[in-house]
Amino acid sequence: MDWEVFLTPYKQAVEELKIKFKGVRDEYEQADHHSPIEFVTGRVKPIRSILDKMKRKRISMKNLEEEMHDLAGIRVMCQFVEDINRVIELIRKRNDIEIIEERDYVTRQKESGYRSYHVVVKYPVQTIEGEKQVHVEIQIRTLAMNFWATIEHSLNYKYNKKIPINIQKRLQRAAEAASRLDEEMSEIRDEIREAQKVFQKKEEK
Amino acid sequence: MDWEVFLTPYKQAVEELKIKFKGVRDEYEQADHHSPIEFVTGRVKPIRSILDKMKRKRISMKNLEEEMHDLAGIRVMCQFVEDINRVIELIRKRNDIEIIEERDYVTRQKESGYRSYHVVVKYPVQTIEGEKQVHVEIQIRTLAMNFWATIEHSLNYKYNKKIPINIQKRLQRAAEAASRLDEEMSEIRDEIREAQKVFQKKEEK
Amino acid sequence: MDWEVFLTPYKQAVEELKIKFKGVRDEYEQADHHSPIEFVTGRVKPIRSILDKMKRKRISMKNLEEEMHDLAGIRVMCQFVEDINRVIELIRKRNDIEIIEERDYVTRQKESGYRSYHVVVKYPVQTIEGEKQVHVEIQIRTLAMNFWATIEHSLNYKYNKKIPINIQKRLQRAAEAASRLDEEMSEIRDEIREAQKVFQKKEEK
Amino acid sequence: MDWEVFLTPYKQAVEELKIKFKGVRDEYEQADHHSPIEFVTGRVKPIRSILDKMKRKRISMKNLEEEMHDLAGIRVMCQFVEDINRVIELIRKRNDIEIIEERDYVTRQKESGYRSYHVVVKYPVQTIEGEKQVHVEIQIRTLAMNFWATIEHSLNYKYNKKIPINIQKRLQRAAEAASRLDEEMSEIRDEIREAQKVFQKKEEK
Repeated sequence: MDWEVFLTPYKQAVEELKIKFKGVRDEYEQADHHSPIEFVTGRVKPIRSILDKMKRKRISMKNLEEEMHDLAGIRVMCQFVEDINRVIELIRKRNDIEIIEERDYVTRQKESGYRSYHVVVKYPVQTIEGEKQVHVEIQIRTLAMNFWATIEHSLNYKYNKKIPINIQKRLQRAAEAASRLDEEMSEIRDEIREAQKVFQKKEEK
Repeated sequence: MDWEVFLTPYKQAVEELKIKFKGVRDEYEQADHHSPIEFVTGRVKPIRSILDKMKRKRISMKNLEEEMHDLAGIRVMCQFVEDINRVIELIRKRNDIEIIEERDYVTRQKESGYRSYHVVVKYPVQTIEGEKQVHVEIQIRTLAMNFWATIEHSLNYKYNKKIPINIQKRLQRAAEAASRLDEEMSEIRDEIREAQKVFQKKEEK
Repeated sequence: MDWEVFLTPYKQAVEELKIKFKGVRDEYEQADHHSPIEFVTGRVKPIRSILDKMKRKRISMKNLEEEMHDLAGIRVMCQFVEDINRVIELIRKRNDIEIIEERDYVTRQKESGYRSYHVVVKYPVQTIEGEKQVHVEIQIRTLAMNFWATIEHSLNYKYNKKIPINIQKRLQRAAEAASRLDEEMSEIRDEIREAQKVFQKKEEK
Repeated sequence: MDWEVFLTPYKQAVEELKIKFKGVRDEYEQADHHSPIEFVTGRVKPIRSILDKMKRKRISMKNLEEEMHDLAGIRVMCQFVEDINRVIELIRKRNDIEIIEERDYVTRQKESGYRSYHVVVKYPVQTIEGEKQVHVEIQIRTLAMNFWATIEHSLNYKYNKKIPINIQKRLQRAAEAASRLDEEMSEIRDEIREAQKVFQKKEEK
């Protein structure tokens, strides 16, 4: 198994989608509108993590591409919770992406405190041997959700997915603080929107 | 006044310092240690903002380089409040940067709710006409401080530095939520550190 | 006319196609095969050049997108003349690009000495207002052809497309030297290919 | 031996010097002058190549940093042969680089046909443990020299440094064609310079 060769189309999908979502942000900025996309990152799952997950979930090599949907991953960060839905709408409208699954951990957060919206899509990559459809998992979240998730991920890594109960509790408190920050931000967002309406009415006179 | 030519050494300073601070982060990651630097951004002040500030602060063209210290700006983002001091220590130890001023808005936050540590430094750029010392303002802050500051900046921009009092209050509440998130994160950080001590003691036996 | 907004989908097409052609090169390198693509550059036509060309060719604003096919430009550089055809084949096979015109200045070089293969394609960009088909001109050439073309371009720029006759002659001599270099390189390429055949036959025993 | 950690300051030196030489090019372009630097590449020597060279040249691990001067490598490409000297002058004038060795394979080319100007320098990197001086080899060459060198390198790699005599001869012929191209280009360069003088005289009247 040559992993480098196997993962090449996934790496390509990540590079192309990063450029595409950055393009969306640029388009909004060009038009002087608030962009629902703040920034975008992407990665191909590290080989070691693929092997771990295959073992944990009993996935065979043969079914790997069909059953593991996060070999390629894109993360879209938003300023406001409300922007998450706008990003989902944008994805639904694109002709170059086909949505095959959605999981909403924003309205129904995980027990751990994890919040994010996950969309699994099919994306066509043109390889030198022809077109290949690959799965990509797109995670959409606010900056605060992302901040918390980064910390949780590094703790999970340290404790090998068995975070001690007292730290779990502290993590939940941090998740609440992150959630609180998102709410305060949303309230300001409403103010901004209303202020803009007043402003635009003036302009139209 | 050819602004492009005038700002070229400042642009160069920003590019070099971004690469240098990213190198610090990579060095920690290479050694599998927690990096006090999460990510780094940089920018040269837009010409329009320079002109506005010259007018507001009555700075003449002649004194521009001596009196405006944020023509070049670097922003260093940290995961934990405690990392801010570690970054300052790293800057103090470097031979290629000379600190000429420090302002601590972390322990003494601004009335608006703004928190960040500012360091103004001198940095030598090798131009085709010889060495030129330029001022660079380095802002060091947590992700939550940065998140809040980004919002405040866009509101200041919209309201032309006169944010309505009710929005100011909401902004302060958001600043408190950001602060709260930082505190919760610091507590987890202590847990991690203690957990690691136990771990290392085991290893040493 | 807001040129920045108008050119945004062209800029996006350039960014996406650069990533796609770089991906082709990486795919060959991953598989340890000689890549027909050495490197890729791209640009959106500068506004000043668009206006000049509109005047020169009497193109109206209304017909601009339909009649000017090089608003977006991609340049693919090859090591060997033979690689040019391989790149054209790759473009023909892609599902995300539709060829609408080909001009072969490699076998039939321009009087000036200019050599390159030009392909005009249609490429779909997903904008926030839906899909938009844009024209992109792809120029495929060897490093030596590119080298010469760069020089000619800067001379044309200096002399405002009226290069003095004696310099034109020297340019043609340089074009011949570039052509000669390409031929010598092709001969070595054949040697390499034959050497590899011998090598592979040995391996197969 | 943790090679990744060992090579980190070399990687950092390469990143910083690439940004610095690109800055030189931008400075010339900003001032609308012909830049002696066309483009810049850099690399850290692959571990496998380091081990091969240590064996071939009998270099011990202890003496590695002192005796192998191309662990970090920068390549500066020029349009014209005359630009090579201008780049060397620029390096000599910089305060952040100390030249410790020069080898001129431009006026005295290697038997193989190889031409380039090599400068070995000392460059200070600020690591988290303090300043570290590292050696960097800077190769300065025209585009044609670079083109040829790339081909020779890949042939050497294929034939394990024992290129068959008939291919060596063809390589030399290609080197002559590259040299010829450089000469033709230099002649045009003189024309340009003279044309500009005439132009400037007119302007001064």
